[in-house]
Parts: sequence; C-alpha cells; structure tokens
Amino acid sequence: MTLSLWTDLHLAPEANPDTVIRQACIVVEDEEIRWLGPQEALPAQYAHISQRHSLQGQWVTPGLIDCHTHLVYGGNRAREFALRLEGASYEEISRQGGGIASTVKATRELSEDQLYHQASRRLRALMAEGVTAIEIKSGYGLDLDSERKMLRVARRLAKHFPITVRTTFLGAHALPPEYAGRSDDYIDHVCEIMLPTLVAEGLVDAVDVFCERIAFSLEQSERVFKAAQDLNVAIKIHAEQLSNMGGTTLACQYRALSADHLEYLDEAGVQAMKASGTVAVLLPGAYYFLRETQLPPIELLRRYDVPIALSTDSNPGTSPCSSLLLMLNMSCTLFRLSVAEVLAGVTRHAAQALGHPSISGRLAPGHKADFAVWDIEDLSELAYWMGLPRCTQVVRHGKISFTHEAIR
Amino acid sequence: MTLSLWTDLHLAPEANPDTVIRQACIVVEDEEIRWLGPQEALPAQYAHISQRHSLQGQWVTPGLIDCHTHLVYGGNRAREFALRLEGASYEEISRQGGGIASTVKATRELSEDQLYHQASRRLRALMAEGVTAIEIKSGYGLDLDSERKMLRVARRLAKHFPITVRTTFLGAHALPPEYAGRSDDYIDHVCEIMLPTLVAEGLVDAVDVFCERIAFSLEQSERVFKAAQDLNVAIKIHAEQLSNMGGTTLACQYRALSADHLEYLDEAGVQAMKASGTVAVLLPGAYYFLRETQLPPIELLRRYDVPIALSTDSNPGTSPCSSLLLMLNMSCTLFRLSVAEVLAGVTRHAAQALGHPSISGRLAPGHKADFAVWDIEDLSELAYWMGLPRCTQVVRHGKISFTHEAIR
Ligand SMILES: [Zn+2]
Ligand SMILES: [Zn+2]
Repeated sequence: MTLSLWTDLHLAPEANPDTVIRQACIVVEDEEIRWLGPQEALPAQYAHISQRHSLQGQWVTPGLIDCHTHLVYGGNRAREFALRLEGASYEEISRQGGGIASTVKATRELSEDQLYHQASRRLRALMAEGVTAIEIKSGYGLDLDSERKMLRVARRLAKHFPITVRTTFLGAHALPPEYAGRSDDYIDHVCEIMLPTLVAEGLVDAVDVFCERIAFSLEQSERVFKAAQDLNVAIKIHAEQLSNMGGTTLACQYRALSADHLEYLDEAGVQAMKASGTVAVLLPGAYYFLRETQLPPIELLRRYDVPIALSTDSNPGTSPCSSLLLMLNMSCTLFRLSVAEVLAGVTRHAAQALGHPSISGRLAPGHKADFAVWDIEDLSELAYWMGLPRCTQVVRHGKISFTHEAIR
Repeated sequence: MTLSLWTDLHLAPEANPDTVIRQACIVVEDEEIRWLGPQEALPAQYAHISQRHSLQGQWVTPGLIDCHTHLVYGGNRAREFALRLEGASYEEISRQGGGIASTVKATRELSEDQLYHQASRRLRALMAEGVTAIEIKSGYGLDLDSERKMLRVARRLAKHFPITVRTTFLGAHALPPEYAGRSDDYIDHVCEIMLPTLVAEGLVDAVDVFCERIAFSLEQSERVFKAAQDLNVAIKIHAEQLSNMGGTTLACQYRALSADHLEYLDEAGVQAMKASGTVAVLLPGAYYFLRETQLPPIELLRRYDVPIALSTDSNPGTSPCSSLLLMLNMSCTLFRLSVAEVLAGVTRHAAQALGHPSISGRLAPGHKADFAVWDIEDLSELAYWMGLPRCTQVVRHGKISFTHEAIR
C-alpha cells in the first residue's frame, strides 16, 4: 500500500465550477483516491504521508475523457485537404483514390506496428492535455483482419501508455470496395462473422454503426444492434449528422450508451434519448471542419436534461484533431454551451458515454486517481484559451504520467 | 566563425509547396545561412563540417512569423467569456467592469515583471510551434507610463527569449477612462506626448491605430499617422473590421506596412493597398471567436495580387489564441485560402508586414538562419492538423532554440 498526498491545490472534483474546493488536498492510495477535501480538514491519520506533492495553487480536475475517436488509421488526408482548397471536386478527389477509400486502403496496407506508431503521436497529444481515458473505434479496415488489426492497436496503446482505452467495433462505418452494390451482404458479414469473431477475441467493448444515407440504413443498423444485443455488447450510433433518419430513436430502443453527432435530431429523438438514458455526444471539430451550419438541438437536449458529452472525433476526413481543449472552446464558441456544460462534457458525461465502472469522470474516495493539474486561476480558462498549454501534470491511476517540460 | 551542417531534410526555402528541395542540406555560418540546396550538390568545402545535425527526413521551413499580436497584457477575460455564455449582456459585463476596460485596469496595475511573466507563457507556446519572429503591440496601457511598461516588456522578451520582436505603439487602441468624452484630447496626448517620448526611448518600431466607429475616426487616425510620419516611424492600421470606414485607403496614403482585419474592405481599398505595397493581415482567430460572418475580400486581394499575411491577433478579448498553426487551419477552413497562401501568410508575407531587413521569412544564403523542423510528410500537414504538435526543433539565428520533448 502506497499513500501519497497532493496539497496546495484548488479542486473541482466534478469539474463543476459551482462545487469547487479551494485550498484542498487529495490522498491517493495506490490507484485510488482515499480522501479529498479542504486542506484544513485533512484527517490526522494522513498528516504524515511522506510522499507529498505541493501543487502551489494550481487547479485539479478529473482527467479528461475523449469518448468518440477514430484515433487508429493509416496515413492522413492532408493532400486531399489541400486539393479541395484548390478547387478539386469530391469527384476528382474520389477519382484520385481520395476520401474514406484512401484511408481504408492505407489502413489495410500498414502493419500493426506502423498503425501503432502513427496513432501514438495523436494519443500523446491528447494525453498532454490531461486526457486519461479514450474511446477508439475501428472502421477503416472493413474486413475481418484489418478490423482486428485496428482493435489490437487500440488494446496495445492501452497497454503501453498510461491511459484507459475503450474499444468500439465500427465495421458498419462504410461499405468496403469489394462489397460495392451489396451492402446487405456486407452487413451479413459484419453480423455473422466479424462481430462474433472479434467479440470472442476480447477486442470489442461496444459496437457502433454509421446510420446515414451515405452509409447504412435504419434496417441495416438494426441488424447490427440485434447482433450486438445477442452478444451482450453495448451499442453506440453515428446518427442524424447529415439528415434526420431516426437512427437515434432506433439506437435508444437498444439502450444505446450514446448517440453521436445529432445535428439533425428532432424532439422525438431527444425524448427517446431521455427515456433510454442515452448520452448525446456532440462533435464540434467535425461541425467546424465541414463548415456545417445546422446546429445540434442544444435547447432540446437541455430541456429534457439529456447529458451532453463532447469529443474530438479525431479522424482523418472530417476532424483531424488532437486537442480536446480546442473542442471545449469550439463547443462554447460555435454551440454556445456554457463552461459548466463543456467541462461536464469531457468528464462525467463522457464517462457515461463509455459505460465502464472504472471510468467515472469524477474525483471521490474509491474512484480511480485519474486527474489533471492545470496552471490556471479559474476553471473557465480551460475553455477560453486557444492553443495555450496549461496542463502541467497528469496523474493516472495514482501515478504521474505526464509533466509539461518548459521551453529552453 | 562557427559552421554547422543540417542534413537529411526536405526543404521549403520559401515555405512554398511548389519550390521544395527534397534530400537537401543547409550550411549555417554563425547566425546566417551560408548555403542550401540538394545534398548531392553540397560544395566540397562544406563536406567536412564537424558540427552536423541529421534531420532524418523531416521538413524544414522558414521560422514562422506572427505579425499582429497583443501578446502583453494583464489578466485574461475567461470569466467574462463564461458569463457571456450564460447570457450576460455586454452592458452587464461592462457594469461589472468587464470588456477592454478590465484589461486596461489589469495591465496598469501589474508590474513589469508580472506582465513579463504572463506574456512569457504565451510566447513560449508560439515558439514551440516554430515562431521565430513576432510583432507585439502596446494598447492596454493608454497612458504614458503604462504604454511604456508594455513596450519595455516586449523588448525584454526579445532579450531573454530566442525570438525577434518588433514593437508597435498602439496608444490609439481605445479611449482611456480618464479621457471619456474627450477623444480628440486623447489623440493630442498620443501625438504630442506619448508617441514622441516612446520613440525617443527607442521603444517603438511602428505605430498602429484602431480606426473604427467604436474606436477612433478617420480624422483622428490621420493625425496619428502624420505624427508618426514626422518621426519617421512606419505605420499600421486596424481597419474595416466591423464597418467600411476607409481607414485602409487612408493608411495607404501614408504607405502603411499593413492594414489588418479587413472584413469590410471594398475594391477601392484593395486597389489602394496594391498601389502602396501594403500587406493585408487577416486574423481568422478573431473572425472565429466573434462568430463573424462577413468574410474578408479574399478574391479581390487575389485579383490585385495584394500579399496576404495571417496572424493570431493574440489578445484577451477577441482572440485568446497562442497557436499560429491553428490560424493556418482556420484560414483554410473558414476563409478557404489555399495551403500555399497560408504558408506564405506566416512567412514571407508576414515578414513584409513587419518591414525589417533581418526578417525575410525566407531561407537563402545571407539570410538569418531562422527555421523550423517538422515531423511531417507533406507541407499541407501544417494547415491540416488541429492541435497535433509537429514542430520538433526550432533554430533561430543559427542556434537550436527549442526541441520537442517526448511524453514519458
Ligand atoms: Zn465518428
Ligand atoms: Zn489587433
């Protein structure tokens, strides 16, 4: 049993500006928080812990949680980004092998080591901003071996980096070229071969579907959800991003952990989310990068008290983003969420979207000691600044996992 | 005389994707570039330099230049940002002492040391992204002593950090409270006392005016420009941000180095810029943060071949931004500039907006050895990624000034 004491800090145990404890301290025992509260109330039994860390008035919040990412993929689409700005049409880019097809090709071609290396860099950037838990989806392999490879990379990242990783199988992300014109056959393959195999191999924590006119239909989505349900695997959905297809309501019938994107969600969909306890994951990076103008139904989500989470959606096509803090700023600036809302969105609500008992997004006795230390004077600074590093230390499962090195 | 050799790099000496040299090397002599070109063409006399740095296939561009910043200021406006999202009106915020008045108050109250410390942090963030030259404006002091204090901090940053700083006196930024209702008197004070005093003290490299209905009139702006002209100091202008007042055309009559913001600029203004060789400095961070919808006249600027520069506008009220790379992404995403345009915008065009012979924004023999090393495969990645650190090394005046530390 190892005890350590963190002192001289201001604490936001729920990442909530309304429930902060100034001049606080935290007692950590091995991987967990044993006690936290005002410094003056520290129980006598903890007064003589030898391993001490004075944070000199810095702030502590729960470690951040990035609950919707496509972090593992091959290559990038920077050249495509440049070509599009020079006026190339989607068709021309497609003809040159661009778009999601190019990412699928690159992901299939790369070895597990290469994918691991490329994803590591993005993961490091997130961790340097205080992220201690992340969801990673497959969905650029689109065949059994390549989807397995992606999920194995995700598991390997969890093993080698001090971060908790939840994996999501997104075989139903796009139609692979070898199934062109046969999307029902591909969904059969997803449900009958890929999903059960990968679940049996212990690689799948949840299942996700891209339900959209350019991807899979409601009926196809439901087949995937049924297969997941049979295997007792939690579900998620990419829904209502480009049109209101009703995917969210469907997913809620299967008690989805989260429905994600949601720009075109209507009131009935919001009600369904409320009824099923499904988290609304909003993705401002994609909204920004695609120059969307249809805002997600923030007021309805508030009115029905549906928990809102926020995430990078880190992916090469629509959100090549490795900064969760930038997503806080974009959620405030573009979606007009409050600071309290965005902080909940990357802590306890994001935890809820992952649905695992070890990830709470809160600091309390008995919870994992996953927290971030910030060189700020007010919590609102986490959403206010753009591109200013403020995270000076990350503690994950009781151990310091990151410290910010000063410039020479 | 110290020679060093940088090898195994891909070189974009003009930060131009169309004129790159693959497998290149650079010979640095003391502070300057002596030779650069393809590795195979390295002159025999440089073949045996003992001080060598292999960059292992990374890319090298000129050091980036942030040509419009208000980097030095007291406090921040994060609380105001939060209040506004909770629905507080401008009036309520103003009643609570918010807005620019709060920054002026904080800036006046802080000591030079405190201002230096606060600005250092923002400067470090910029430097970590490859910035080797920066412009810093005064304008939150608004009295002689406080403006002097700001400019002294800017000079001190230049002395202590490996970065080139150009100072701009922006006394005519806002009306200080003690001159309420007497803006002409304040302009007298700016022209007759503040400007000549600070120029005499060697603190002023250029003069800027915020010409806008909420700030200073055309006539007042011209008085400041005349005073600057008499003292032989170059001018700049904040113009056409919220309305088309004609400030740009006026500034061009005084051969302004740059006109900045420009959302409402018309064709006559663009023609004036072309005629006077004035650089258009666009500030996408402020455009984004203020949720502007009026785009600057990009097509007109292109048609008249007016050089476009880009900058963070780093300031607490409208662009609390310390990432010049994010501005590249925003310029592409929001303004639809091409990758070639945004790279020119933070190198040679930004240099032109500063107007000093030691800052060229180019890599060539005889130029300062100011360059950034990037872990990328294509230059377009500099604009494509959001929040992914890619700068691994910065060289300024021939010396390594920054190296990126890996996460533990
Ligand atoms: Zn996604
Ligand atoms: Zn400005």
